[in-house]
Amino acid sequence: MKHKGILIVVSGFAGTGKGTLMKMLLDKYENYALSVSMTTRAPRPGEIDGVSYFFVNKETFEERIAQNGLIEHACYCDNYYGTPRDYVEKQLEAGKDVILEIEIQGAMKVKEQFPQALLLFVMPPSVQELEQRLVGRGTETPEVIHKRMCRAAAESEGIEQYDYIVINDKLEDCVVEMHSIIQAAHYTPLRNEEFIKHIRRDLEGLAKGEK
Amino acid sequence: MKHKGILIVVSGFAGTGKGTLMKMLLDKYENYALSVSMTTRAPRPGEIDGVSYFFVNKETFEERIAQNGLIEHACYCDNYYGTPRDYVEKQLEAGKDVILEIEIQGAMKVKEQFPQALLLFVMPPSVQELEQRLVGRGTETPEVIHKRMCRAAAESEGIEQYDYIVINDKLEDCVVEMHSIIQAAHYTPLRNEEFIKHIRRDLEGLAKGEK
Repeated sequence: MKHKGILIVVSGFAGTGKGTLMKMLLDKYENYALSVSMTTRAPRPGEIDGVSYFFVNKETFEERIAQNGLIEHACYCDNYYGTPRDYVEKQLEAGKDVILEIEIQGAMKVKEQFPQALLLFVMPPSVQELEQRLVGRGTETPEVIHKRMCRAAAESEGIEQYDYIVINDKLEDCVVEMHSIIQAAHYTPLRNEEFIKHIRRDLEGLAKGEK
Repeated sequence: MKHKGILIVVSGFAGTGKGTLMKMLLDKYENYALSVSMTTRAPRPGEIDGVSYFFVNKETFEERIAQNGLIEHACYCDNYYGTPRDYVEKQLEAGKDVILEIEIQGAMKVKEQFPQALLLFVMPPSVQELEQRLVGRGTETPEVIHKRMCRAAAESEGIEQYDYIVINDKLEDCVVEMHSIIQAAHYTPLRNEEFIKHIRRDLEGLAKGEK
């Protein structure tokens, strides 16, 4: 049975390893495509246009908004960030499961337009573990870590809006688990309307005595 | 993380191999328990009390109903059939995923009482395949097969009430798929309320500067 792809939204607290998880998922399994965001902020050293982000100017971004060319967009620190619609729709049509990494407000906007989107929230096994990972990076000051914890506390209020939580304890296990949640999602009735319609039509045909 | 078990309701058309699937699931994986129904019908040759069914008389069955001792029950051909509550609740508490095989009316009653129950509907890959399996048994007359097709057509109207469809094409693959759907179901926010509450409390503690 040929499936259309699933749009997968991945959110989660900073420091839960979302980026690594998604990279591993794409390396380990076929059938995934990663959506690249569009932004008006300047590229940082090492960032590649079309890989890290699509870097555009403000006029181009606003044109895209006006053309309904973005699934969702937001403005942070005077810069726009958004998800181009054409890439996502093309990959879904081709049967790819497309992954977006965005925060909760964006996730809710995506769900409005794609009710069949699958929303995953990546969590640490414990808050202690999360704090240790952030401290362990050695790059963040205690103030920054405290700010991230405050943000995580606020973000945690939205977890019930997600379809599944993904607990990143051991990275290797977590990737397998995440893949298996996504695979299972292909088998909801909502995502198999065509197949069910087909089965019903054939059963009714036989019930009426047709061949 | 210790999970409470999930109550899994399995329905599906006659001839889709539900019985074999569940037997294989229990043989292949630990952590499943199969609920045994209670009935007032007489045992058939080879049926074992406590394995095939709990065979009881009408008075005992009606006492159970009166004591709210059955999760659901129904009456077919003057015989009662029902699901004893105590076994199911004990196994769920012990962390087992408990499987019930019942038809759609029973499934809806279970969902009312156990909103966290997982409802699976087993389907054939095609109606042609289903018909061939029934014909292939060689035990059913064309009239009986036609009757089953009519019943399947009626039952198919309820598929959208289920959480997932399970397509039994190759039995071996189907068992793995069914297991993986059930495993994924352990990670919905609704089934992890305690864990999420715990994480929130700890995050708020840190955000307020507690240690």
